Amino acid sequence: MIDRLCVIGVGLMGGSIALGVRQKHLAREVVGVDSDEANLQKALALGVVDKASTAVAEGAKDADMVVIAAPVGATESILGALKPVWSDHCVYTDTGSTKLSVIDAARRVFGKVPTRFVPGHPVAGAERSGVGAAKADLYEGKRVILTPREDTDARAVTQVEQLWGQLGAKVSCMEPGHHDEVLAATSHLPHVLAFVLTEMLGRKDEQQEIFQYAAGGFRDFTRIASSDPHMWRDICLANREEIVSLIGQYREALQQAAELMSAGDAEALLALFSDARAARQRFLDTLE
Amino acid sequence: MIDRLCVIGVGLMGGSIALGVRQKHLAREVVGVDSDEANLQKALALGVVDKASTAVAEGAKDADMVVIAAPVGATESILGALKPVWSDHCVYTDTGSTKLSVIDAARRVFGKVPTRFVPGHPVAGAERSGVGAAKADLYEGKRVILTPREDTDARAVTQVEQLWGQLGAKVSCMEPGHHDEVLAATSHLPHVLAFVLTEMLGRKDEQQEIFQYAAGGFRDFTRIASSDPHMWRDICLANREEIVSLIGQYREALQQAAELMSAGDAEALLALFSDARAARQRFLDTLE
Repeated sequence: MIDRLCVIGVGLMGGSIALGVRQKHLAREVVGVDSDEANLQKALALGVVDKASTAVAEGAKDADMVVIAAPVGATESILGALKPVWSDHCVYTDTGSTKLSVIDAARRVFGKVPTRFVPGHPVAGAERSGVGAAKADLYEGKRVILTPREDTDARAVTQVEQLWGQLGAKVSCMEPGHHDEVLAATSHLPHVLAFVLTEMLGRKDEQQEIFQYAAGGFRDFTRIASSDPHMWRDICLANREEIVSLIGQYREALQQAAELMSAGDAEALLALFSDARAARQRFLDTLE
Repeated sequence: MIDRLCVIGVGLMGGSIALGVRQKHLAREVVGVDSDEANLQKALALGVVDKASTAVAEGAKDADMVVIAAPVGATESILGALKPVWSDHCVYTDTGSTKLSVIDAARRVFGKVPTRFVPGHPVAGAERSGVGAAKADLYEGKRVILTPREDTDARAVTQVEQLWGQLGAKVSCMEPGHHDEVLAATSHLPHVLAFVLTEMLGRKDEQQEIFQYAAGGFRDFTRIASSDPHMWRDICLANREEIVSLIGQYREALQQAAELMSAGDAEALLALFSDARAARQRFLDTLE
């Protein structure tokens, strides 16, 4: 049992951890840290946290577990604020969607990556954001990827695994570079595609009112374009090499599809769409 | 009240029309035509149609309304098969996702577009296909776009409007070229993007098992990649000019986004994603 859990960044992700931990009595108390005072008051009012502070060092003092759940661009400054109160009796983890950038940030702050810092990523997005969207069961059945290093404290890894396991998540470990490569493909690229499409069609809609003729398929396809812009700005900058490389591959694949259409190549188009449908079925099969 | 409704192509779209008409008693009898004998037997067994035939001319004989609900690439041959039994006492419509191509097909078969043919498009996709997926309420609250010409018989237009209205759809009329332009943006392009992404990632998945780390956002984003490949091959060929043009615009927009990432332009990325989110909210607002 955790004595004092400190969650830094009480939005959808951090708020859902705090709420799940409180409802399942996994910690004696949960302290929320957020730079937004109004958000903290809301978190207190909603019963998401027991205590609140706008100061990282104050909130993390005497904690035995600290979870950084802020946009990845803020990780370095948060680690810097934690440094003065960094403790050998505490385990540190994060929820950032990119892992190499978080590890680099830790190395810049501490000179080397602290052994009690276990980088993590719960793969459980949602297009809603903010503490008001927090749900105690957000991580139920979801995957969490941890990216410990060889010299990471094994007990610290176990404690982080336990926390996620108790919140209902399926935990696995991965190399951070491999994490960033895999997530660029299945999460970061799709988000960029949805943002770019929705922005482009939004400009057309202003002239032609096209959105009123869009159907359910469009609603689902663009759902992730309602995700938090700050969070995704940070992700796209933190994992830019992988994402830019995939955008290049995708633009090439789109060009090939366009050429099949222009050439009237019915057979190749059918093969392309059939392969896509089969691949999606394979994806659906992995869900169960 | 319709006396004899003939639905040509008894899949998801046609089957749902037939089922809705039967359940609401909008016609004395519903005849299903399909080239697939097994599919017709299934439609009969499911109570989707009263009678069935694999021959267009036989099925459409003595009908007072005929709905062509086949992939758009089959429209010309179906109109050709209807020509010998074409009747002044019957109204003809279709459900094709592209309209200029359907009108061109009619002109090629008849020399000019028949005045009792009212091209139409129910904007109600679904990733499932086949008569087994048919639902009597598929069109409830959905939009249907009709693209009549100046010389189209006004009573024929009214009868088609009434049919869709009784099935719960909201009917509007539009120029066929404008229809194809609008639907290319909100439906055809998103489908191509989803097919191309899923096929591309399917190849990566075979090496890296990336799909097992994909989350709900990916499931929603790729839902339309499970759509019927034959139907979408036909749509992409029929409306290729609009779609290829939009692919070009989209590739350009993607390239700009990649350049913002490479340049580390945080402010411009935030503006792009914020604009996208705002545009999607505007789209959601049009739904209610």
